[in-house]
Amino acid sequence: MRHKPVRAKPTDVTEWNAGTVQRRADDLVTEEPLEIRVNGVPLTVTMRTPGDDLELATGLLYTEGIITGREDLGSVGYGADSANVVEVAVKGETGETGGTARFMSSACGICGKTSIDAIRARGLSRLNSGATVEPSVLIALPDKLRQAQTVFDRTGALHAAALFDTSGNLLLIREDVGRHNAVDKIVGATLLASANGPTSIALTASVLLVSGRAGFEIVQKAVAAGIPILASVSAPSSLAVQCAREMGLTLVGFLRGDRFVIYAGDRRLHLDGRSG
Amino acid sequence: MRHKPVRAKPTDVTEWNAGTVQRRADDLVTEEPLEIRVNGVPLTVTMRTPGDDLELATGLLYTEGIITGREDLGSVGYGADSANVVEVAVKGETGETGGTARFMSSACGICGKTSIDAIRARGLSRLNSGATVEPSVLIALPDKLRQAQTVFDRTGALHAAALFDTSGNLLLIREDVGRHNAVDKIVGATLLASANGPTSIALTASVLLVSGRAGFEIVQKAVAAGIPILASVSAPSSLAVQCAREMGLTLVGFLRGDRFVIYAGDRRLHLDGRSG
Repeated sequence: MRHKPVRAKPTDVTEWNAGTVQRRADDLVTEEPLEIRVNGVPLTVTMRTPGDDLELATGLLYTEGIITGREDLGSVGYGADSANVVEVAVKGETGETGGTARFMSSACGICGKTSIDAIRARGLSRLNSGATVEPSVLIALPDKLRQAQTVFDRTGALHAAALFDTSGNLLLIREDVGRHNAVDKIVGATLLASANGPTSIALTASVLLVSGRAGFEIVQKAVAAGIPILASVSAPSSLAVQCAREMGLTLVGFLRGDRFVIYAGDRRLHLDGRSG
Repeated sequence: MRHKPVRAKPTDVTEWNAGTVQRRADDLVTEEPLEIRVNGVPLTVTMRTPGDDLELATGLLYTEGIITGREDLGSVGYGADSANVVEVAVKGETGETGGTARFMSSACGICGKTSIDAIRARGLSRLNSGATVEPSVLIALPDKLRQAQTVFDRTGALHAAALFDTSGNLLLIREDVGRHNAVDKIVGATLLASANGPTSIALTASVLLVSGRAGFEIVQKAVAAGIPILASVSAPSSLAVQCAREMGLTLVGFLRGDRFVIYAGDRRLHLDGRSG
């Protein structure tokens, strides 16, 4: 079953502007629940912006550790009668109750698996990618992301995540009401592309840029996906920085204009500039 | 057990500014997991900024329907040996397995109880408050919120929620890495104040202002708390607007400068201005 996603919905609003009242039409970003079922069993429901749902489901299963690679992935498709249900067939143990139970106690409301201990418990390895990026490349990324965003211009309410190679070429961009969903869509798109044959996207030599802030959850997903460099236009949290340092992730914040702050993993940036 | 919350943590960072590299100290907003236990049973873990944890736990139980009023609430306190655990004693049925199970399938990762049907299923009533607010009062609120924010100035990473009366007087402000937590802290503070005796805070005649966007979850919490007017400085989602309209909530977005957009519940605003 195929569905045409409705990413924005028109609505009538009332605008008040310095005492002048105007009724007009407006576009709202669509927010709807998506239920993800693994081997027929409901796993979770996430509030998301419709579109790229199969990528979202695939990416979520991967960054949350339910599947560990494309070899675990069987079919991925919409439910028989709903555009808000994605059915994923998972091969082997990971799709069994064990995997589901593990998930429900972790990413779901971030219950349980909330700390760096939990990341370690998942057996994620420290990122050892030797990828590097030039500061001049990095500072050009936010403009590239904004130019590639389509729905945001209309609604003002969407988060975006974009994947670049280390030369600054845009590989993928995804938008969603939830920043974590936008990241999962990116990761899922890469995984699905690789499942369909050779792909030119190498996550281990990529830079992920997210709009807004970088919390623990985003860092966790980048680490799980093997992305070595994560940049955000705003501030990270304490746990995001701690996790990035322990897991070998390069974490950049406040990437605005010709300035940025490195919170972890300086070694992946060519800092041959003047010292202040 | 009492704890002094650490809302911001110092860290060493590297700043790159137009080619000049500078190592300096920075403050990061603290993000740590909080486990909420109801009658000794772990209910959920939420990532939050430490501080006002008892209010957060109380507010979350209330906005998620685990308790329906102060009469359900027994003691609220920190766990014996952790500042990241809050123990809540709940009276009557709501604290039993039924209540817990209901929660785990709803707010946790927003599983299950994701739609307006779910709000209806909870038996929440349409807001019938006759409170109104002047546009001139509304447009002054964002500045009052910013002036009252303390941690944000240092970290740039905190969301805030503030409660005002309909004359624009600031009643409460709370900050957190999670916008939903800031709202729960506000609601919990009100509930705990009322449990300690008469309080001057009447939620049914209040305005809640949140930094950032207004998604479904924030609207759901406002409705559950009986707050009739919700304003945000940014955009709402489609489901937030739909829910606000069905539940009788006045929803204002893009509250910036001397302009705002009303998405639901015009009747609570005195729109006697010129028509555009």
